[in-house]
Amino acid sequence: MTSIALLIEGFPDKSAAKTAISLIRYRSADVVALIDSTRAGLHANEVLGVGGNVPIYASLDDTPVADTLMLGTAPSGGRLPANWRTCICAALRRGMTVISGLHDRLADDPEFSQLAQQHQAEIHDIRHSKCTHLATRKGLRPECLRIHAVGHDCNVGKMVAMLEIEAVLKQRQRDAQFVATGQTGIMITGSGIAVDCVVADFVNGAAEQLVLDHQEHEILLIEGQGSILSPMYSAVTCGLLHGCVPHGLILCYQVGRTKFRHTHTPIPPLRVFYDLYESITSSLSPCKIIGIAVNGRDCSTQEGAAICSALTHEFQVPAVDVYRDGAEKLADAVEQLENEYFSMDKNVC
Amino acid sequence: MTSIALLIEGFPDKSAAKTAISLIRYRSADVVALIDSTRAGLHANEVLGVGGNVPIYASLDDTPVADTLMLGTAPSGGRLPANWRTCICAALRRGMTVISGLHDRLADDPEFSQLAQQHQAEIHDIRHSKCTHLATRKGLRPECLRIHAVGHDCNVGKMVAMLEIEAVLKQRQRDAQFVATGQTGIMITGSGIAVDCVVADFVNGAAEQLVLDHQEHEILLIEGQGSILSPMYSAVTCGLLHGCVPHGLILCYQVGRTKFRHTHTPIPPLRVFYDLYESITSSLSPCKIIGIAVNGRDCSTQEGAAICSALTHEFQVPAVDVYRDGAEKLADAVEQLENEYFSMDKNVC
Repeated sequence: MTSIALLIEGFPDKSAAKTAISLIRYRSADVVALIDSTRAGLHANEVLGVGGNVPIYASLDDTPVADTLMLGTAPSGGRLPANWRTCICAALRRGMTVISGLHDRLADDPEFSQLAQQHQAEIHDIRHSKCTHLATRKGLRPECLRIHAVGHDCNVGKMVAMLEIEAVLKQRQRDAQFVATGQTGIMITGSGIAVDCVVADFVNGAAEQLVLDHQEHEILLIEGQGSILSPMYSAVTCGLLHGCVPHGLILCYQVGRTKFRHTHTPIPPLRVFYDLYESITSSLSPCKIIGIAVNGRDCSTQEGAAICSALTHEFQVPAVDVYRDGAEKLADAVEQLENEYFSMDKNVC
Repeated sequence: MTSIALLIEGFPDKSAAKTAISLIRYRSADVVALIDSTRAGLHANEVLGVGGNVPIYASLDDTPVADTLMLGTAPSGGRLPANWRTCICAALRRGMTVISGLHDRLADDPEFSQLAQQHQAEIHDIRHSKCTHLATRKGLRPECLRIHAVGHDCNVGKMVAMLEIEAVLKQRQRDAQFVATGQTGIMITGSGIAVDCVVADFVNGAAEQLVLDHQEHEILLIEGQGSILSPMYSAVTCGLLHGCVPHGLILCYQVGRTKFRHTHTPIPPLRVFYDLYESITSSLSPCKIIGIAVNGRDCSTQEGAAICSALTHEFQVPAVDVYRDGAEKLADAVEQLENEYFSMDKNVC
């Protein structure tokens, strides 16, 4: 059992604390403390809206036993904020494992690497991958169903949709496995590759490597990144999409998102994405969209329900808000696709 | 004026000497010698099929004055062959500039870096880019027409098509500029970014950076890479496609290519690519395919002509083999697109 202290020192707003919020939500049993000198004495729920009574401490010295320090917010540019150094050094002196998703490599820092060596502490820079596998579409296990999350933009709930579907399938005693492709997903599951930091030639290969590494399971739920039309990040999305050779896609959609994140470029209608995702995958191997995960965080329950209903009608696949409605219908769609493929014809890969 | 010695030591076949062949073809005035101890005494034309009487020497010692050594073949895996070391060291001792497109960084090699320092020689590892620009679609000059080459696979003639169109446009006194996105193109033009070695998050940004760096010209002819359906490399293709924000595309097609290079995956019909390239670009900004560059190296002149005619008929855009027919019709299509966009409406970017 891992016990995690989450460093969230001075995060400006909830959107910057996405990693911390997801860790509290999906590793609630493991997160024992938050560290933020500006909010010491408060509880997780009061500042993040999740996490109940998990206490916030001013420093690691005040924190009860924890064996792992995770950096729980994403500072602008991915650089190490100067005021995090004290806490990271303290963790290494205690021999704790430090897990970072920063662009800056902690292991390259002389002070950190020396402390880690002295105190047998481990540093995991999960935003750095040396993957040099080239995708060949060889060795894929035909009995493993591969489901992949795609979206109309970054940060619309692709990871959450897949984790919620995984939970439902596990409740049904299915051997389903979420496969992480980004830093938060890796912190939640303890494995994966942050594909956005792989060298361009090997993005497709990194996705294939993840499939090869996990395909002993019956069902893989492969996290998506970005958007196939993202002006900034479509390279990552396209490489993932082809590299993981999906049988089915969950299309993720945030109500009210009109421009691609961090840009002034308008997002096309969902129909454009629906058709494009299906054609760009199924031109190489059989694949279709099996459901829509609607993120209604910026709309009322009533409005969200109306949108889900309209999307279900328009696209003829289940459209649900996994937080409000649960992921049962999407899990049903996964199992239905599995039946379609594998009871009729095993010769699909 | 640069005088280039091209190292082609022991290349196994012509497809491995693609860089050398293109350099001889497009920098014929600059290439003064080839170096290959296994073929000394022969001439370029005898072993590469191009380059006329350019002599092949056994070593750099036998070679007359040259100020630049370029590594002209791509060994499998991009690693430095052991038998190239002597020649590279000799070049550095002469104070020559050494230009390498290998994955191995020559500048990281202690022997090479020490020699370079001692003899004021320069090492350019062009397959390594530190580009960290994120694409924002801001600052694009509306008066610059951006044409991009795409294809159904790698290595089907995208670079050649753009270089031939550039030559025709320059003959017409147009301010057209080829923009290199791969190692051979960079060696030919002396600038560019090898986008396949950029970190995934910055592929779109690297393409945008190239546009920003060159958009003082009237017409940019931006080299393409891979294929939007390449199982191995689609990440690179997609990032380039969105990052360079093209107004028009030249679709490159090699007759007889049935499987994606280095894979067993069948290549879909050209119609699939045609529709996909148009939809994935025009969903963000106006863009269309304006011509097809047919590579007929594996078919007869007669067969090639029949295929060009059939493609022209099917897609209603000019389809030509630029080697056999010249690039005039494709250059016409570029100028016609320019007229369509800019005489009617300058407010397109």
